Order: sequence, then structure tokens, then C-alpha cells
Amino acid sequence: MQIDNFQTVALIGKYGDPDVKHSVAHLVEMLAAEGVHVLVERSTAGELPTRAEHEPASLAAIGNQADLAVVVGGDGTLIGAARHLCEFDIPLVGVNLGRLGFLTETSLTNMEGSLEALLAGEYQVEERMMLHIRVQRQAGDLAAERAFNDVVIHRGNIARMVEMDTYVDGQFVFSQRSDGLIVASPTGSTAYALSAGGPIIHPSMRAFTLVPVCPHTLTNRPIVLPGHSHVEVVLVNNPGEVQLTLDGQINFALQDGDRVHVQRDEHSVFLLSDPRRNYFDVLREKFSWGERS
Amino acid sequence: MQIDNFQTVALIGKYGDPDVKHSVAHLVEMLAAEGVHVLVERSTAGELPTRAEHEPASLAAIGNQADLAVVVGGDGTLIGAARHLCEFDIPLVGVNLGRLGFLTETSLTNMEGSLEALLAGEYQVEERMMLHIRVQRQAGDLAAERAFNDVVIHRGNIARMVEMDTYVDGQFVFSQRSDGLIVASPTGSTAYALSAGGPIIHPSMRAFTLVPVCPHTLTNRPIVLPGHSHVEVVLVNNPGEVQLTLDGQINFALQDGDRVHVQRDEHSVFLLSDPRRNYFDVLREKFSWGERS
Amino acid sequence: MQIDNFQTVALIGKYGDPDVKHSVAHLVEMLAAEGVHVLVERSTAGELPTRAEHEPASLAAIGNQADLAVVVGGDGTLIGAARHLCEFDIPLVGVNLGRLGFLTETSLTNMEGSLEALLAGEYQVEERMMLHIRVQRQAGDLAAERAFNDVVIHRGNIARMVEMDTYVDGQFVFSQRSDGLIVASPTGSTAYALSAGGPIIHPSMRAFTLVPVCPHTLTNRPIVLPGHSHVEVVLVNNPGEVQLTLDGQINFALQDGDRVHVQRDEHSVFLLSDPRRNYFDVLREKFSWGERS
Amino acid sequence: MQIDNFQTVALIGKYGDPDVKHSVAHLVEMLAAEGVHVLVERSTAGELPTRAEHEPASLAAIGNQADLAVVVGGDGTLIGAARHLCEFDIPLVGVNLGRLGFLTETSLTNMEGSLEALLAGEYQVEERMMLHIRVQRQAGDLAAERAFNDVVIHRGNIARMVEMDTYVDGQFVFSQRSDGLIVASPTGSTAYALSAGGPIIHPSMRAFTLVPVCPHTLTNRPIVLPGHSHVEVVLVNNPGEVQLTLDGQINFALQDGDRVHVQRDEHSVFLLSDPRRNYFDVLREKFSWGERS
Repeated sequence: MQIDNFQTVALIGKYGDPDVKHSVAHLVEMLAAEGVHVLVERSTAGELPTRAEHEPASLAAIGNQADLAVVVGGDGTLIGAARHLCEFDIPLVGVNLGRLGFLTETSLTNMEGSLEALLAGEYQVEERMMLHIRVQRQAGDLAAERAFNDVVIHRGNIARMVEMDTYVDGQFVFSQRSDGLIVASPTGSTAYALSAGGPIIHPSMRAFTLVPVCPHTLTNRPIVLPGHSHVEVVLVNNPGEVQLTLDGQINFALQDGDRVHVQRDEHSVFLLSDPRRNYFDVLREKFSWGERS
Repeated sequence: MQIDNFQTVALIGKYGDPDVKHSVAHLVEMLAAEGVHVLVERSTAGELPTRAEHEPASLAAIGNQADLAVVVGGDGTLIGAARHLCEFDIPLVGVNLGRLGFLTETSLTNMEGSLEALLAGEYQVEERMMLHIRVQRQAGDLAAERAFNDVVIHRGNIARMVEMDTYVDGQFVFSQRSDGLIVASPTGSTAYALSAGGPIIHPSMRAFTLVPVCPHTLTNRPIVLPGHSHVEVVLVNNPGEVQLTLDGQINFALQDGDRVHVQRDEHSVFLLSDPRRNYFDVLREKFSWGERS
Repeated sequence: MQIDNFQTVALIGKYGDPDVKHSVAHLVEMLAAEGVHVLVERSTAGELPTRAEHEPASLAAIGNQADLAVVVGGDGTLIGAARHLCEFDIPLVGVNLGRLGFLTETSLTNMEGSLEALLAGEYQVEERMMLHIRVQRQAGDLAAERAFNDVVIHRGNIARMVEMDTYVDGQFVFSQRSDGLIVASPTGSTAYALSAGGPIIHPSMRAFTLVPVCPHTLTNRPIVLPGHSHVEVVLVNNPGEVQLTLDGQINFALQDGDRVHVQRDEHSVFLLSDPRRNYFDVLREKFSWGERS
Repeated sequence: MQIDNFQTVALIGKYGDPDVKHSVAHLVEMLAAEGVHVLVERSTAGELPTRAEHEPASLAAIGNQADLAVVVGGDGTLIGAARHLCEFDIPLVGVNLGRLGFLTETSLTNMEGSLEALLAGEYQVEERMMLHIRVQRQAGDLAAERAFNDVVIHRGNIARMVEMDTYVDGQFVFSQRSDGLIVASPTGSTAYALSAGGPIIHPSMRAFTLVPVCPHTLTNRPIVLPGHSHVEVVLVNNPGEVQLTLDGQINFALQDGDRVHVQRDEHSVFLLSDPRRNYFDVLREKFSWGERS
């Protein structure tokens, strides 16, 4: 990705958050003062006082017109925006509301300085792979979706375990009974997959990890697969409904016999980040890894 | 528990299983031929051909009249029977349908010999503690139940984590966000709690284990508590419904603010087992622990 | 344990630490000013300026004469003192040098106030079980020792795994190949055993936990046993030397065929602690468990 | 790797094993009867009856002259051969002595049929990455070695933990105190790294995994890195000797301040395997993953 300058910048805020509202309004002013054309995502714009400095825009319009999208909120807001915007290949930068996120680079307090540095060209581009998910039911394909962090096939509110057969590139891997199965991207490896016992995967990799959630068979350990793999999970012997969740944000009811196909999406997410800060700096801070105690 | 002889024996079968039906019918004949008075649990009896050799009975009648209850089915059937019968202090023995269970001592194939040995006094008695659960809502107590294996407070089909505050004997333990929290008895330590990363607890102990399921905070590890502890879990900040499950068999919808109290029940379960076989023999077989390879 | 007053108090310091030296000297003055008879452990005394206010004493003399031992250093110093003093049943209190310990109740900064509160009777007594270890070689018993935290049978510097057969109360548990096996007391459950995947065990319990270190068989999970258990570990098929370590402080070379017996020691450790602070307060602080974030 | 035919085949046996000796002798005859030129590794040859059918050869001669090396023994024997032969780019096939290995494709009983199929061209080639290790001491480089499975920096027989600083591509990752740190190849992910809690990594990947062994900090979880990474581990604050072990076979004493560099080796291992059997088939068998129970 070659990014020369940012003439049109879009702002996307976490919906319904008063702190975000003020921050977005502040960013609008600052960017307009720099001579940048500012788009504001339509629902975010609805929360701002009307002014001439910005133009409300749909996510599709942002994707088509903006050179950069600034997402104000937590990791969740960025993940949601990334799912929609990745097909337009525009770079994203996250501004965090609360404490440091894995994906959100800067905080509200130093937001202005960071953004100016970024507009001045001080950034690195990180390409992150996206997951592509297709649900196949007897009659045909039901849905095709994207996920940035993870796809989770979960027992929902039934008390019994889910039963699934998993295939990779057509090769049978295992039949598993468990609370669920997570297919995570490297980005998602530090989210839910980590709580379920999965490894941390460097986000520059093209890889998946399959992480069983509370598997009945104790030797069912997390598996890391190459990014070109085709993962297929088939629901078997499940009398009730099973739940599919994407990024912890989108839910979908599965039926027995459904086949969930997961592959690397053709589009990636491009995150802009501070060149003086690397992935391990974030891990150390988030996980309180002792430097020297 | 002093058990002198077994003049009245009750049979309880897994409902709706044809193999169980035949085995129970066979056991009725065998026990009647030995001069034993045979009770058959009412729903199990409804599946048998009518004969004079047995008397249909409710679980309460079994509890009051029988000297021994033989449960034909898997671990689940025994656990269900134990929850109902423990208050009568009658001993239980499990006959397994399929492969070896943790609780079900003998298999269908050698059931007859085992039962004769048992009637002849060749058995040991294992006392197993039971959990007592009380759910408290603003207005008062909602329910009081028992569980043999575990109490699970789980997120159900909501995509977000459950948030809970836990207290032990009135002392604050932690606020935790996770998929759920398991409070398991020693008997339940080899069931769901083990899949979630809990330790194996010797079933002769009076102890609880608190096992978080996929906790957000990685240092939230399983905790083992004395059997006299009073565990209290309070739901906080959960907008939707949360699920309480007992032994994977009984479900109950919780609301935010509900308080779940778990203590050792005043009643225990008394399992009769083959004196030549101990707990570690069962563990080795179930977990394929290498003896000497 | 009934403790009425503390007429004779012993001070034991971490050897060779200049901060400790100053703190002990300060405590001597303070206690002498209160009219308390002060013993100082001989090697600690050797580091102090000679004065009339304290009497150097061996650990045995301390055990026989003191009403209380104050241990200045980290958890390790307290553990070492506890191994020696437990047979005298005198209570211990730990003063921590650096950051909060699991066992060391107070820090240097508020040491004086804490000790005065304690002398005034503001404390609770926690009884903690001790491990008793006996190593048996063909010819007979080699050694009998105590450990407060844990007994570790470890591969030492050989590259291959250790092979061991484990028995509990004469019942065969398993043959295991691993880096080692930890037998931990409840107090030791938050030390090395936790790093190896063991559970946290409430320190008021009489229980052991057997925690395999990197076992070859993935289903070899931690086991919790009643405090009255007799654990026996036999070394088998190990061509080279195997190492026994007590509390990470005492090492002992084992040979193939050696039998290590572990039981609860007849003596306990009695720790005095601040009644306004409980075990879960310590866990939350040490493990950064989120209260409400 | 294009392999057209196998005119010269080398046999390498596990040293000192009588079953291996007979199998190798048998294979010599079989291969000679097929008109193949047979080399036998010198120490293996020394155990055979002298005959004209084979030629003793050093590993270097085998590397230079053979079109295929057949390794008779367990995974360990194959790993040792691979470390030496990988620089010659000759393909390897393993014949297992005991039960199925991860790397050894066929057993003694069906060895002959398998080898004939292989000579007839029925095989697939799997490329497996190798690790390159360089130990740097103040004065300069001490050693450069290869490992197929893993590099382990371990505390050896000292009772205290090892302290290490880790860097990836010059970026500081963490300071860690632990029993040790494993840097494993995908092939090694199912060996020692798995016992220490690491993930299973598909062997076709170019990746490393860093797996801490019993880390003091509970959030120090396994990390997966791209195969082009340069991992550097620096020993800090270790008063005594620390041990470096390659593939569990080669030991090396490290000193404080030593720097261990690990990268992907320029050479790979090429394993020939039965095209009807894939990696997941091996995993299911080795880990007793339930197909459908």
C-alpha cells in the first residue's frame, strides 16, 4: 500500500458515547483547519452539532472517497469498521477511548499530536489478514461474511456440548465435542482465543489458529494452520440450535448439518501505527509482562 | 453408613433406552430369584412387560423403602438419581451401558456377577459430598437445589462475557469477566471443570473448586476451597439473561443482581463399589495414563 | 494456639542484605524500648553493631525461648525459618523487603506500626500445614526433611525426562515421564506449582497437590489429595542422577530406585497476620485480578 | 525437490539396538536384490555381519552419494540424521521400531512393502524447516548448530529460575524468569513444546514458536512468529550455569551474558511419506482424538 497524502479523511465514532462525540467534533475542527476534506460516518454525524466543516457519509461512500479512516472508540469499534471498509483498501487508524487497546494506537489525550504526525507521514503500515466465512446449508449458501478477529461456533444456551467434524483442505482433522470452536486470525489471537488457551500469533503472519473451547477430549489442543488453508467445520448430532458469532458482534443461528467454511479473505486491513511503537510493546503493556523487576 | 443386608432393592433405568429396558427386566428376574423385594422406578417400570415380580415405585417411595438403588445407564443417569435420592441416605450403585464411567461401577456384561458379589457383602462404601445451591433475587429466595457434579453460571447465548463478583465466607474474591464460572464438587472435578482447566480432586475430600471458563484475565486460575466454605456469586452489569446449569441437566434463567449461594449439602451420596478397584484405576483407564509403555 | 503475650521476641534476617541489617537494628531498638527481651538469630546478629539490647541466639534457642519470631526478608527467608522453627510451635510473622509477598505480611515502611499492633494483640493466627519428606534407598532411610511449599523431583541437568511411579496410600496412581513432579502444600500452591499449571489451594486446607511438570502424557493433570494421604514416588528407568529440591532451597541427589515419601508433617506453621487483610486480598494484589475495571 | 529414481540408498540405524540390526540386514538384502547400490552408515555397518552387498559410509559420504536415506529407529534417530544430512538435501524416510512416530512413516512389520512402494515412486515429499542456532559470547561466536525440533535454554540442575531477555528482529519482547524457554520449529511443536503448553503448528509452515517453561509470570503465553524472524535470547542475572539443549540430544553449557540467536536454517529436511496418509491422520492416532465415539 502506497499512501501519499491524506486529502480526504473520514471519522467514525463509537455510537452513543458522549466522550466520542466531543472528540470527533474536535477532530473535525482540527482536520478542517489543516485543509483536509472531512467525511463523518452518517450515524456519528447525527450526534454532532451541524456545521459546514464536515460532510456526512455512508460507510460505502467513505470507502470510495476517503484516503484514511480515523476510528474513535475501542478495539470493538475499529473491528466493526474494518469488516466494512476492508474491501475498499483504505487505511485505518484507531483512537482509543479508555485504556490502551491492541488495535487502537493512540488515546484521546494525545490524539491531536498523533494525527498531525500521521498526516505528516510519520507512520508505518501494518497489513492484517481478514477471515472470510461462508455458511452452507443443504439448499446452498446461506451467508458470506467477514471477520477480523474470529469466528466462533458455540453451544449457545443449550446445556450440552456441540459436536463438530473439522476438515482442513479436505483432510479430516477430528470430531470434537466441546463448548465451541474458535477460528481466529493472528489479530484475533489475543482476543477470545487467548482466554480459551490459544497462542499469541504475530499479526504480520498469514495463519489461522483453531482453538477448541473446553473440549471433552483433553488432548484437543490449539492448532496453527497456514493462511492458505481452507477450514471446514460441519455440525453433526446437534439436536438444537448452535450459534455462530463473528468478532463477538454478529450472531447467526446454525442448524445441524450446516457447514462453515473459513478462509483468508482476499482483502486485508491496513492499520497505520506509530513507527516508534511495535507489537511487543503493546503485548508487554497489556499483559503486564515484567521487563526487569 | 452401616449396611447389613439388602432386602429391598430398587432399579432405576435411563429412560427410553431399549438396552436398559432389557437389562432392567433381566435384573428384576435375577433379584426376585434371590428372594429380594424389587422396586422399579415408575417411568422405568412403564417400559417393562407387566409381571408380578416387581413393584412400580416413585423416587420418594424408593428413597423411603429401598435398602439399595441400582441405577442402569451412564454417569448422567446416576447423577440425576443421586440428586433426588441423597436426602434418603440410601446407597447407590451404577451399572454402565456403554464404556466405563467415572461413577458407574460395572458394565452390563458382568452386571449379574457384580450384583451378586454386592448382595453377598463384597463392596466398599464411598461417601461423596453434594452441593447445595440457593438463588436469591431481590424479593427473596427463588430456588434451592442440589447438584452432584457442578453448578455453572454461564453466558448462555449472548455473545458477550458474563460479569460476576465472587465472595467466599463473606470475603471478596474477585470481579471476573468470563464465559462462565464453575463451582464443582470433587466428583464433578473430572467432568466439565476438567475441560475448563480445573484440577482432579480426590472424591473423598470435602472441597469445592471454582473454575473460571475462558476468563478475560489470564491470571484467574482455578481455586480449591474447604468443604465448609460458603461461596456466593453475584451477577453484575449483565444487561441480558444469564444461565445457571446444575449437573448439565437443570437450567435456570438468572437476572442481573441475582446472588447464587453454594455450600456443601447436609446430605451425601453413598456409592457402593467393587473393593478391588480404586479411584486411580478409574482415572488411569479413562485418561489413558500410561502405566509403563 | 493460644498466645497471651510476647515477652521474648526473636528477629531473623535475610543474610547479607544491607537493608535488612538496618531494619533489624531498628526493630531491636524499638522492641527493647517496649521492654521486650530480644533475641537475634546468630548470623543476623553478626551483621549488627554490638549493643546490649539484644542477645544472639541459635535457631534452636529461638525455638525454645521466644514467644514470637519476626522474619525480615522475602517469602524465601520466612520459608527457611519456618522449616527450622515449626517443631517448636512458635508463631512467625514476616516483614517483606521488596514488594508484597504471599507470606510476608507487612513492609519495611509500615513495619513499626504493624509490630506494635501485633504486640497489642491485633492479629489473627493462621495454621499452615507442613510437608514431611522421607527418602528411602535400598539400604534404608537416607534423609527425613520438611518443606513448607513443595517437594520437587526434577530431571536436573539431564536432557531426558524423568520416569516415576506414584502411589497414594499404597494405591498405584500412574507411571509418568515428565520434567518433574511437584508435591505442594496449600501454601506452596501459589509458588512453583502455579507456574506448572496447578490450582490455587486455600491455605487453611489440609491437602496436597501433585503437579506434573511438562508431562509427556497430556492428560496428566494436577491432582488434589486429602492431607492425610501418604504419597510415594519411586524413580524407575532413570540412568542418571535425578534431583530432589525442597522449597527451592535444599537439593538432594536421588538415584534410580529411590522412594520419596511425602506426608503431612506433625508440626504446623503458625503465621500471625493482620486481621483486616485476608488471603483473597493478597491473591488479588499479587495476580492483578481486576476488581471492577 | 525433484527425485527421479533411487539408485543409491543409504541405511542408518539406531545404534546398539538388536532389532534394528536385524532389520537393517534384511533391508540390505532386499535393496541389493532390487539392484540398488546400498550404503550403510559406518557405526550401523559395524553391527552387521560382513557381506559384499553393502558399503560402509560416513554420514558425509552418504550425503554426497545417496539418493535416499532410510533411517531405522524412532523419531530421535531420524532427528539426529536430519541434523547431519539436511545440508546435502537428500530425502529421508523413517522406519519406526516401536509404536508410530510423528516422523517415522512405517513400522518394521510393513517396512518392506512400504519401501518397495517408495522405490516405485509412490510417495509425497514434505519440506520441513530446520532451525539454525548461533551462540555468541563476549569474545565472538562460540558455536553454530542446527536443530530439527527445538532449542531449549533451561535451568539445568540449579534450583532457581533462569532469567532471560528475548528480542525478535531486534525488538525487545520480554524479560522472563522461568524454568526455560523453548524455541521450536513446526516439527518440534508436537514434541517438548507441546508438553510445555505450546500449540500444534502445521509442519508445512515456516514459523517458530516461543514456549516458556513454567514461567513466573502467568501471562507469558506461547508466541508464534514468522519463519523469517531472528530470535535472540540473552542470559541475564544468572549466577550459575545455564543449559542449552538441541533436539533433546546435544547439550551445551551457557554462561551469563551469552546470546543465543535462532533463525530458520537455509537448508530444509525433505521427508518422504505415504501419500495416502496425512498429518492429521498422525495427530489423531498419536493423541487418541475421538473420531466419533
